[in-house]
Amino acid sequence: MFRVSMQVRDYECDLQGVVNNAVYQNYLEHARHAFLHHHGIDFAALTREGVHLMLIRAELDYKAPLKPNDRFEVTVCMVPEGRMKAVFEQKIVRDDGQLMVDARTIGVNTCNGRPARLPAELIAAMDEERA
Amino acid sequence: MFRVSMQVRDYECDLQGVVNNAVYQNYLEHARHAFLHHHGIDFAALTREGVHLMLIRAELDYKAPLKPNDRFEVTVCMVPEGRMKAVFEQKIVRDDGQLMVDARTIGVNTCNGRPARLPAELIAAMDEERA
Amino acid sequence: MFRVSMQVRDYECDLQGVVNNAVYQNYLEHARHAFLHHHGIDFAALTREGVHLMLIRAELDYKAPLKPNDRFEVTVCMVPEGRMKAVFEQKIVRDDGQLMVDARTIGVNTCNGRPARLPAELIAAMDEERA
Amino acid sequence: MFRVSMQVRDYECDLQGVVNNAVYQNYLEHARHAFLHHHGIDFAALTREGVHLMLIRAELDYKAPLKPNDRFEVTVCMVPEGRMKAVFEQKIVRDDGQLMVDARTIGVNTCNGRPARLPAELIAAMDEERA
Repeated sequence: MFRVSMQVRDYECDLQGVVNNAVYQNYLEHARHAFLHHHGIDFAALTREGVHLMLIRAELDYKAPLKPNDRFEVTVCMVPEGRMKAVFEQKIVRDDGQLMVDARTIGVNTCNGRPARLPAELIAAMDEERA
Repeated sequence: MFRVSMQVRDYECDLQGVVNNAVYQNYLEHARHAFLHHHGIDFAALTREGVHLMLIRAELDYKAPLKPNDRFEVTVCMVPEGRMKAVFEQKIVRDDGQLMVDARTIGVNTCNGRPARLPAELIAAMDEERA
Repeated sequence: MFRVSMQVRDYECDLQGVVNNAVYQNYLEHARHAFLHHHGIDFAALTREGVHLMLIRAELDYKAPLKPNDRFEVTVCMVPEGRMKAVFEQKIVRDDGQLMVDARTIGVNTCNGRPARLPAELIAAMDEERA
Repeated sequence: MFRVSMQVRDYECDLQGVVNNAVYQNYLEHARHAFLHHHGIDFAALTREGVHLMLIRAELDYKAPLKPNDRFEVTVCMVPEGRMKAVFEQKIVRDDGQLMVDARTIGVNTCNGRPARLPAELIAAMDEERA
């Protein structure tokens, strides 16, 4: 499974001394884009061409909070849903194996503002993953 | 219903020219804390006393993206779930009435790291809202 | 003098319980863009046309830290420096008159990646301010 | 010289398609904290004990903008200034050797809100660096 290693940075922590809830979405997005990049899909380049992968839903189950200096991995598993949507199942797991966040996001592809078929590279990436 | 008025700031927008997905969680958190503050609950003060309201789940449905300078409101409706949890139903609505994000977050109260009853002021706030 | 009123949001605070140092640059940028917008210059629109106002230098003197819920104003005073640069003198002042940050940023105008004359509207805005 | 390797994440980029100006301060702070950590100083632990290293000044010269996926290093060089202050000279250098940001920040140590001598470990770290 595709995974990205990261470490908590102090500025990502809030008053409570733990990583702020919104920051986990940053981690998840970064891992998704790294996943796409790994499969030859450059998010910034697509954006310049008017192709936008837009999130339409995010579900996050917060199991335990990450703290300063914690090391963790973010996994990415992508499954197509019809021709225009992709579902990303992601986990954030601390170095010691503790599950911190269990997430599911759904993205839809759009081209110049209209729903569009997923890029062929993305379909190929999903097939690769499942193989 | 409790609501907070806000406006998109350019630094909240990303490569795609719209508000980044994670930023909506910032908006939602800010509105929840404003709601608590409105009901006499100071989040920062509670935190110093070891009382932490921790999110355990967040669900966001992204309906349409906010753009630079857009004005919007974030609503907050809180419902207790048992003695230790609170469910927040929130909407982000653009000035022209367009629903941008429909969200539901669940928080659990903890005191020095252990699940604890919701603070009495919070129960009172929820009763006030429903009255 | 041009000024924008803002209030600290809890998610902008870090482990130390005060607004994180980087966030003041967000506040300053937001006030600069509001200043431009007030003078008929839309930053996002300029960007789409290939005109980029890029910071080349920022100086911030941190006098006292903003805390949760603090209300404050950010002032903007702009002075041209030659034909392609603008200097922004900005202050962040808490509601009770306490100076929190004293800042000076220098921006240069670029068009499709090359230094370019400041947009005419910006020159007009600077003249207006000084009048 | 102490250095930390990092890579641009897409969510750090703004409307202009480059890393937002404020984010460089995040990078610089992260590198300073990693430097402290490397020398046995835990920023989060110090904070809990009431010892706060507060920035009093930041100067950033932006030379060229970082873009999506760029890899870079952040260097840290610390010099004491009197008994209570430390000056950090930092550079952000892209993989190909291009200098992106040249920065200088000054921090003062405080203990329970009052200026205080720099922690002994920090003095030792500065001596180590210069040796």
